[in-house]
Amino acid sequence: MNPLDLHELKRQGYMMIDFLVDYYRNVANYPVLSQVQPGYLRELLPSSAPSKPEPFETLLKDVKDHIVPGITHWQSQNYFAHVPSSSSVAGFMGEMLSTGFGVVGFNWISSPAATETEIIVMDWLGQALKLPECFLFSSNVGGGGVMLGTTCEAILCTLVAARDDKLRHIGRENLDKLVVYGSDQAHFALQKATHIAGIHPENFRVIKTKKSSSFTMSPDSLLSAILHDLENGQVPCFLCATVGTTTTTSVDPIGPLCDVAKNYGIWVHVDAAYAGGALICPEFRHFINGVEGTNSFSFNAHQWLLTNETTCCLWVKKSSCLTNSLSTNPEYLRNKASESNQVIDYKDWQIALSRKFQSLKLWFVFRSYGLDNLRNFQRNHIKMAKTFEDLVKQDKRFEIFVPRYFSLVCFRVSPLAITNYKKPFCNGTHNNNVHDGELRGKIINDDDEHLVNEINSKLLDLVNDSGKVYMSHGKVEGAFVIRCAIGATLTEEQHVIVAWNIVKEYATSILSKLSKA
Amino acid sequence: MNPLDLHELKRQGYMMIDFLVDYYRNVANYPVLSQVQPGYLRELLPSSAPSKPEPFETLLKDVKDHIVPGITHWQSQNYFAHVPSSSSVAGFMGEMLSTGFGVVGFNWISSPAATETEIIVMDWLGQALKLPECFLFSSNVGGGGVMLGTTCEAILCTLVAARDDKLRHIGRENLDKLVVYGSDQAHFALQKATHIAGIHPENFRVIKTKKSSSFTMSPDSLLSAILHDLENGQVPCFLCATVGTTTTTSVDPIGPLCDVAKNYGIWVHVDAAYAGGALICPEFRHFINGVEGTNSFSFNAHQWLLTNETTCCLWVKKSSCLTNSLSTNPEYLRNKASESNQVIDYKDWQIALSRKFQSLKLWFVFRSYGLDNLRNFQRNHIKMAKTFEDLVKQDKRFEIFVPRYFSLVCFRVSPLAITNYKKPFCNGTHNNNVHDGELRGKIINDDDEHLVNEINSKLLDLVNDSGKVYMSHGKVEGAFVIRCAIGATLTEEQHVIVAWNIVKEYATSILSKLSKA
Repeated sequence: MNPLDLHELKRQGYMMIDFLVDYYRNVANYPVLSQVQPGYLRELLPSSAPSKPEPFETLLKDVKDHIVPGITHWQSQNYFAHVPSSSSVAGFMGEMLSTGFGVVGFNWISSPAATETEIIVMDWLGQALKLPECFLFSSNVGGGGVMLGTTCEAILCTLVAARDDKLRHIGRENLDKLVVYGSDQAHFALQKATHIAGIHPENFRVIKTKKSSSFTMSPDSLLSAILHDLENGQVPCFLCATVGTTTTTSVDPIGPLCDVAKNYGIWVHVDAAYAGGALICPEFRHFINGVEGTNSFSFNAHQWLLTNETTCCLWVKKSSCLTNSLSTNPEYLRNKASESNQVIDYKDWQIALSRKFQSLKLWFVFRSYGLDNLRNFQRNHIKMAKTFEDLVKQDKRFEIFVPRYFSLVCFRVSPLAITNYKKPFCNGTHNNNVHDGELRGKIINDDDEHLVNEINSKLLDLVNDSGKVYMSHGKVEGAFVIRCAIGATLTEEQHVIVAWNIVKEYATSILSKLSKA
Repeated sequence: MNPLDLHELKRQGYMMIDFLVDYYRNVANYPVLSQVQPGYLRELLPSSAPSKPEPFETLLKDVKDHIVPGITHWQSQNYFAHVPSSSSVAGFMGEMLSTGFGVVGFNWISSPAATETEIIVMDWLGQALKLPECFLFSSNVGGGGVMLGTTCEAILCTLVAARDDKLRHIGRENLDKLVVYGSDQAHFALQKATHIAGIHPENFRVIKTKKSSSFTMSPDSLLSAILHDLENGQVPCFLCATVGTTTTTSVDPIGPLCDVAKNYGIWVHVDAAYAGGALICPEFRHFINGVEGTNSFSFNAHQWLLTNETTCCLWVKKSSCLTNSLSTNPEYLRNKASESNQVIDYKDWQIALSRKFQSLKLWFVFRSYGLDNLRNFQRNHIKMAKTFEDLVKQDKRFEIFVPRYFSLVCFRVSPLAITNYKKPFCNGTHNNNVHDGELRGKIINDDDEHLVNEINSKLLDLVNDSGKVYMSHGKVEGAFVIRCAIGATLTEEQHVIVAWNIVKEYATSILSKLSKA
């Protein structure tokens, strides 16, 4: 056995490329959401590892026959669920090369090119986002960027840095007084990180948002929460603001939130996991106005910037805060370069020791496409989302539930439409002659809201079970909304239009049954 | 721009495969340890991202001209530093396929095949390691395995699970009483995880090891530490035992340590990051005898089981402990499969939400090579290490510093040899006529030890600066030892012999200068 037989690398490598070309060519034909049942694979594979080798052809056949049916096709043209996982040829090449080099770039000396490319590329991306100079290595004032796996990791690392920075001032014995703030729209990663970092669970402060203010965090609400905590002897420590929340892509007002936070020495982190990809377009950059007042900023280039999983880009203003918390200096990694303080050792910016040559993906993406094209690519997704939004708006049975900022459309069958269909069974409490707007206001009572949610949930199930498209859902202010997230690399306008027609068709079917019930 | 142009995927994909075939073909010719200076790349790349696309050929040329010189070649035949990062064609194919599918397998429904393959493969590997049934899914008693990125993550996740389990019994207010135990040879990941999890830094208990007991953790020392902590009102919580420590691959006695720990309700984790790869061979399985008494076990298949970075395999006996700590259930991820409790949602077994289709790599490795070949491959590395060890032993100027168990040889120029060369400058305190063994005992005084270390450190620098091989070092009981870690996929016996000749040559050169000084 020679596990790096170069003849086999070439033969299998070409075959795998061909397999993937074929996969992408046919991906639109597969059910987007896998239709298999739990435990399906256990039946199809042997219960223990084989003793003897099997030919690559057999493996590829098993992939086709057994694995592909169990895939939910995130790369399909018709994938509109959750957030995109955006692949590209350039990202793929970067990943291949990184895997091929197989370096473990924990410190500079372990592969100088890995660290230095990351430094350069993080500055490139920071510039493209027009991040303040203080976040870039090139400004030489202690800031810089790092590529982590995920936003969850970025939040955990910055939270630990903030926690330790605060405890250095007020003493370790006050750990249980530290408070973490985020809105009820923040990603669950914040609560999970808070828990992992040993912050008291009662000190995870959820700031309520409202539909009337588009589910953004109100600086006044934040201030009230802070003041209340201070009165109770707690110590405000960390705020996570979100630009592009998971459910509705709402945008917290960074500048005003920083204005509040700065008076209390709170570390402000901005999580732009999904939306960050659009911020390279000058016309969207205003969404992070005020970012100069924050301590750290992160987004997932693998979601919506073509770099394939997993690439979370994190910038910090004072990298010493990170490294104070996460540095380790075991003898077996000591080396002259690290001791010269002339180099970055990225192991001290993250949880793990190991790290691949992460930055190659983004380096290939930038150079293969160029910034101009990348910007237009993001704009095109947003344009398609606008198309979908317009189609929804033209159908009076539907409503756009929250303003659309980026490439996500949150919509639902409107309560009004359902009430109209329900008419025969109305108990008379609704006056069907009043103006639409008034009616809409009135029918939001518990019973109806429940029915509206049920119908929208049923609609989404039908749409997804069709296998033709895959969308997901969220719940905000009690309302079940359908999320159509545009951003798969292969999606074109035609797919968006077809997707809408599928939604419409099932809605007609449901509503007609309702009316006939 | 079409970032998933299939013609380009094929064209660039083939070119990248050819590039990597070429890279591996030539890797022995590059300096193993990169010889560039800090900041070298900043000079060679533009200071901002390009606006316009560049041809793939230009990128590949830049990789060749600018990136490759900055690579420390972990895949070289002549790489003997740190631990292996073991690549294979099968692992590479798995990574390509995983990247190509681009699924985000956070829960079952997000791609059933990703979760189910992982369940199956983790059971396969668990069986190959002869882990107790209770660690396998197939036994249906609540245990199972998960693929994480790194050991650091495995330790953090299990530590948080142990922390929370303990706090559920004794109350959250006792967080600062929890104590974590590991030996002074444990990986620094343990201390880092302890810190991240908010355990009081003074409660990280380092159990001293000794050369006389091969740097293994003594159950008696553990017991003393526990009793001392109990006397002081502390609460023993977590023990990390290591099978194959980073510096010397020493093996903590799992069974006896568990016997101590079980009386105090301590969670025992076994970190076999490096050595785990060898434990699939029946003749080495005894190193984890007693593992049935532990709570969790992890090792890095990317280090020494051909699965490419990064694949840490973690098994837990009670998965509910992990999921109690790490579960989240946001509305936007709710789905019928998860609610049926018939499926595993791996997001609840790890820190992050996102995860790739990790298990494909190991699935390809198992099936492409078969267990018999894999076992022989590990044996062959160990055999080569024995060859190196024998060569060291035959040269009286050197000594093997600790027993060799796996494929790492820890050696140094012996104090005796240095003293012999130093003779002309001896101040007379050493009696050069005594028996070697006695002399060796005597010369370990502060001055000599410093000189011995300095010489060995100098020797290692010369060896590594030659670019011909790359080894690393460690320090145990004050002694600087050179580590020759055999495990790169391409390494054959001839490379090990050449490596030894290089070491010998530089040693001769250093010692002769010393004698002439």
